Amino acid sequence: MVAAERPYKLGVIGCGRVFRWPYMSLIQQLRTRGQLDEIVTCDANPEVREIVADQPGVVSFTTDHREVLDDPDVDIVMVLTSMPEHGPLAKDALLAGKHVLVEKPMAITLPEAAELVELAKTSPGHLVCAPFVILSPTFQAMWRHVMAGDIGRPTLARGRYGWAGPDWGPWFYQAGGGPLFDLGVYNVTALTGLLGPVRRVSAFTGKVHDQRMVDGRMIDVQTPDNYQILLDFGGSVLATVTTGFSMQQYRSPAVEIYGTEGTVQMLGDDWAPQGHELWQNSEGAWKLYASPNPGWPWTAGLQHLVESVAAGTTPLVAPEHAYHVLEVMLGAIASGEDGKHHEVSSTFPALSFGDGESGREAAHRVHDRTHASR
Amino acid sequence: MVAAERPYKLGVIGCGRVFRWPYMSLIQQLRTRGQLDEIVTCDANPEVREIVADQPGVVSFTTDHREVLDDPDVDIVMVLTSMPEHGPLAKDALLAGKHVLVEKPMAITLPEAAELVELAKTSPGHLVCAPFVILSPTFQAMWRHVMAGDIGRPTLARGRYGWAGPDWGPWFYQAGGGPLFDLGVYNVTALTGLLGPVRRVSAFTGKVHDQRMVDGRMIDVQTPDNYQILLDFGGSVLATVTTGFSMQQYRSPAVEIYGTEGTVQMLGDDWAPQGHELWQNSEGAWKLYASPNPGWPWTAGLQHLVESVAAGTTPLVAPEHAYHVLEVMLGAIASGEDGKHHEVSSTFPALSFGDGESGREAAHRVHDRTHASR
Amino acid sequence: MVAAERPYKLGVIGCGRVFRWPYMSLIQQLRTRGQLDEIVTCDANPEVREIVADQPGVVSFTTDHREVLDDPDVDIVMVLTSMPEHGPLAKDALLAGKHVLVEKPMAITLPEAAELVELAKTSPGHLVCAPFVILSPTFQAMWRHVMAGDIGRPTLARGRYGWAGPDWGPWFYQAGGGPLFDLGVYNVTALTGLLGPVRRVSAFTGKVHDQRMVDGRMIDVQTPDNYQILLDFGGSVLATVTTGFSMQQYRSPAVEIYGTEGTVQMLGDDWAPQGHELWQNSEGAWKLYASPNPGWPWTAGLQHLVESVAAGTTPLVAPEHAYHVLEVMLGAIASGEDGKHHEVSSTFPALSFGDGESGREAAHRVHDRTHASR
Amino acid sequence: MVAAERPYKLGVIGCGRVFRWPYMSLIQQLRTRGQLDEIVTCDANPEVREIVADQPGVVSFTTDHREVLDDPDVDIVMVLTSMPEHGPLAKDALLAGKHVLVEKPMAITLPEAAELVELAKTSPGHLVCAPFVILSPTFQAMWRHVMAGDIGRPTLARGRYGWAGPDWGPWFYQAGGGPLFDLGVYNVTALTGLLGPVRRVSAFTGKVHDQRMVDGRMIDVQTPDNYQILLDFGGSVLATVTTGFSMQQYRSPAVEIYGTEGTVQMLGDDWAPQGHELWQNSEGAWKLYASPNPGWPWTAGLQHLVESVAAGTTPLVAPEHAYHVLEVMLGAIASGEDGKHHEVSSTFPALSFGDGESGREAAHRVHDRTHASR
Repeated sequence: MVAAERPYKLGVIGCGRVFRWPYMSLIQQLRTRGQLDEIVTCDANPEVREIVADQPGVVSFTTDHREVLDDPDVDIVMVLTSMPEHGPLAKDALLAGKHVLVEKPMAITLPEAAELVELAKTSPGHLVCAPFVILSPTFQAMWRHVMAGDIGRPTLARGRYGWAGPDWGPWFYQAGGGPLFDLGVYNVTALTGLLGPVRRVSAFTGKVHDQRMVDGRMIDVQTPDNYQILLDFGGSVLATVTTGFSMQQYRSPAVEIYGTEGTVQMLGDDWAPQGHELWQNSEGAWKLYASPNPGWPWTAGLQHLVESVAAGTTPLVAPEHAYHVLEVMLGAIASGEDGKHHEVSSTFPALSFGDGESGREAAHRVHDRTHASR
Repeated sequence: MVAAERPYKLGVIGCGRVFRWPYMSLIQQLRTRGQLDEIVTCDANPEVREIVADQPGVVSFTTDHREVLDDPDVDIVMVLTSMPEHGPLAKDALLAGKHVLVEKPMAITLPEAAELVELAKTSPGHLVCAPFVILSPTFQAMWRHVMAGDIGRPTLARGRYGWAGPDWGPWFYQAGGGPLFDLGVYNVTALTGLLGPVRRVSAFTGKVHDQRMVDGRMIDVQTPDNYQILLDFGGSVLATVTTGFSMQQYRSPAVEIYGTEGTVQMLGDDWAPQGHELWQNSEGAWKLYASPNPGWPWTAGLQHLVESVAAGTTPLVAPEHAYHVLEVMLGAIASGEDGKHHEVSSTFPALSFGDGESGREAAHRVHDRTHASR
Repeated sequence: MVAAERPYKLGVIGCGRVFRWPYMSLIQQLRTRGQLDEIVTCDANPEVREIVADQPGVVSFTTDHREVLDDPDVDIVMVLTSMPEHGPLAKDALLAGKHVLVEKPMAITLPEAAELVELAKTSPGHLVCAPFVILSPTFQAMWRHVMAGDIGRPTLARGRYGWAGPDWGPWFYQAGGGPLFDLGVYNVTALTGLLGPVRRVSAFTGKVHDQRMVDGRMIDVQTPDNYQILLDFGGSVLATVTTGFSMQQYRSPAVEIYGTEGTVQMLGDDWAPQGHELWQNSEGAWKLYASPNPGWPWTAGLQHLVESVAAGTTPLVAPEHAYHVLEVMLGAIASGEDGKHHEVSSTFPALSFGDGESGREAAHRVHDRTHASR
Repeated sequence: MVAAERPYKLGVIGCGRVFRWPYMSLIQQLRTRGQLDEIVTCDANPEVREIVADQPGVVSFTTDHREVLDDPDVDIVMVLTSMPEHGPLAKDALLAGKHVLVEKPMAITLPEAAELVELAKTSPGHLVCAPFVILSPTFQAMWRHVMAGDIGRPTLARGRYGWAGPDWGPWFYQAGGGPLFDLGVYNVTALTGLLGPVRRVSAFTGKVHDQRMVDGRMIDVQTPDNYQILLDFGGSVLATVTTGFSMQQYRSPAVEIYGTEGTVQMLGDDWAPQGHELWQNSEGAWKLYASPNPGWPWTAGLQHLVESVAAGTTPLVAPEHAYHVLEVMLGAIASGEDGKHHEVSSTFPALSFGDGESGREAAHRVHDRTHASR
């Protein structure tokens, strides 16, 4: 049952760190604006009950996700569990008629992911798959530059996202985890969003640490934690993605796109952009654009889903794109193992955004960036 | 015959753009300091005679390189011709007992290059092969950081060097040319200088332009002009190299090295460094080091060769390193063609520099960077 | 009556833009943490009632500030009115036994301000005066560098804060308003916080615009809107402050302190710092420190006051400092009028902060800067 | 006697550091191009003879400057002595009919300077006075932006130039020396070049060091070594200049100009610009322009004088501008002593440059910035 009335009731399956801080902070904003209302929560770990009990808006807790899906008043379900459960839970939620947000990756095998894509076409609910990088104002500004031909024809690109690696959550270091699914997925999503579907992939992978201290104890690392990936988009458009759990810090663009007439690049990280920079031969100068919204949250897919449901529109975040990103990542992993270049067969619909300028305040009039006045 | 006395007499084979501006500017400085004296010149094109005739120090011109090699007073020979002639001419010069500087690549096939490496071991003259990135103060400062463990164990790296591409010299766009031999060779040299020999290589290549305007007429591009390359150094140390003739401009580090405890990166280009930056977890801050010598010339191998000859020491630039770089590049080209990861079998001796601090002026005392006082 | 129990009841006098977004956002966080509870509101404009009525926690509205002060349950009063009313209202609130936060400037004449300083010594409540720049982690890090002698003895300094100017609030452009009281006050507070009391001041002032569009209608500008100010701290320590309502945008440090052994400077703005940079001759490199808290709010004085009341400690923000800043600003205005250098006679107690390191997460472990995990 | 034929014969009075490295490097370039030929040298210190004797092109040395001026073949005379001698020597050289380049300041008193300005009007030779900041391509690009109204009407500006101070040349620390005449003079020249004549000046001065180690021995500092200066250009256009011999290093623009519609600023130093940056409200982005000539030498006035003589045109560097700058600096010194704002009465002709675009290579085609191809 998909509700037509706002505010919506939200079901959350998986109440770990990602729910408690990043998503909860957005949820409270959406509740303040009257876009969300009650929250029903679920986690396999019964001890979580106490932690979420006193959160504003939380009305129930269960360890059985069926209870969430069977609640006829729940409009939207978020799947925030560990990675291997994403696919099955998202499927159940779609079958229950809910709008579904699933954290990345949408599934850890292609058949599971394909099933979700098909289901999303026929089910009454929308399926939006993290990451939501294509929703950031900075990404969309870059996309507009590329589409407008501001850099000519794209030729080379680079993306990078890594960090020192989590010291919590052993699954990050087990099969189905790793930095590509956790971090590099943002780069692959951003690059394909800008350049279209990938045709071939090649990768080298490595394991920097055999063991790591996680949640206070030493565990074995069971999956590659270091990746260098090549992407071929056809037409001589070639990219690299660099990701790993042993990058301590960087001072370099998150995403660089080189073209026959210019360059455009994103500062910060693709999940937390800090503006973009544009070179055009015709200008002979770099142009630096501040982010119109430096506090843009990477959880923005939830807001987008809520607003799409309310407006009766199709979300900009398409399951086919997430499927393609998954195929690319699995191809990279396979290439790391068999030493070959791998073909990628799936595609996805081209992105489409408006001109993004309506109602935008002039940049020099934005004074207090910490406290937006709206 | 290898001279022991200074100033040395220089023979130049190939008197194109690279000779006339970059090398000539250094040659005049070395002449002013009394390290070089007369210059004999050679070019296959007889029209060059007029162009070089009035250059200070030029005492002769010939179209026959044997005349240069047969001159018993010539101590040092520079091979600055187009790429396919590098190997044969360097060989002849070594056989003639000269000290030899050869522009990159040292040769365009591995057997030719191997022959040069062997010959250099037995001939009385030194062989130094461009590019000379390892001689820049900034490169050496980075090398010291890596060797000292300032960034822990290296894990990931990136290099990039490209530009809009030359509008002169058709050979840049023919077999044996291309951006990897012309530009990416700097990145491969710098990365191997910092991280040691490569074990495996994979690459995607493309051709962005089918035709280009060169020397005023439209020519067919007959070689890939766009490269993305993966390098595996073993031990989970993985790098990318991005190079092409359709990168218009960048704002990003030339070389980035990520490690388990920090990051070090070069600003500018590896052939024209503008300082370096260091992150160490133990400091919790980026450190920005200005280049001690922003005017360092990429032609510095000539000065190094002159000084090595005068001092009776072995140049820091080893032919084995240049051979290895060539094998890596040929592996990348092959991978671009056959879609496989390629093994690299050669190695080279580890670099070794002093501590680099002796006689260095404190950074805050360097006032006029344009006009060094020494 | 000063309460000893938390959560505290807050009275707000003046419910304009500053209250509704910047302070309200912090108030809601403090309410979530149980540090604040009910809010009673007051504004001279009865139409504000509707605007504040539906804000979470707001329990009453009045146009008579006495009602707020006479409420025995109100612990803390914020004075957020237009500038000329700051002094009289802060005085009444102190006399009513409340803890008082007053926006800048604390008063617009020295006698009023002096009376507040005296009253704060004897009244049961604390008086904290905006701006609160000395509370930002970045300011305190800079202060520690200066105090530790990291830059040697300070000699020269610069501060700047301006923008295109508000298009609301006619009082900004009337006597008692202007960019020095509104913006430059941050620089003067930061510079005196770092360098101690000012001994002499000189200034040039100007009026760039005779008229401006404010709140939709053209008004006469009746006060200088452009300032360049010199500050003499004694001992050859000299500073400038640049402020105005016609600076469109800058890319330069907010505050620069030059010393005999180094330089330290703040990025961003002193009311919204984006990290700091340190040069030490002994290091020979710039060190770049990211802000440990890029979302630090300039309203932080409220949180500091609440926590000081709860802990029974004296706030770090001293009325004497605000008085001194006011004397400096009035001296600058006078110098702009009479063309003379003006002596400044007041002083204030030296600042004192802890070492600031306790419990701080290592910089490379801070991953999601948008969503702090605490 | 003013020669009409090239190459010119150069006379040099004062053969210290400034001659030996910065000017000599340019002189050798001009000799290579056939614009200069023989050099006659003069220094009060007879020991200098040996130092300059073996410099290319130097044909004579004398300790009597009259010998240089009496040589009828000398076309151009450079006055590079210590500051107090500039005025008298420049006067003698003009009277001798020579073209004269005088290092800054042109004189150390206004009457001396006024006499030079008058003499230059009637003498057959040109008088060009250092510094030559208005000749740099970056300065001229900024000037074009300001004149074109790209930043609207200018309102506020800042300039800064200081360093750790020379450890040679005691005169830097004696009356007639100091950082304003040595360093701040560049800022005052650049700011007046962009904003026109100054109407009023105010300054605070200090002495940071009572003694300094100079040329290996401890000397007394007898002049202020620390300055903060205010400049009023009329029309509410106000600037600051910060200069001193105890600034160790900076990361901030050299010159900032704020206007009603934008901002333009110079990177690097005004005597060694590293590009400029432009904000326009209408663009909503910063534009970063690389210097078209990062190796532009601050000695460029010599080349400009040679070319002006050869072309029979009036140099762009006007003595009246140098006079005005001197009056501003003397006003600042006086204000530091008497605590008053000082009027400035002189003016100078507005600058005028061409559009600067003719024959300029597109920025993305400039590949090797170290080795210009022309």
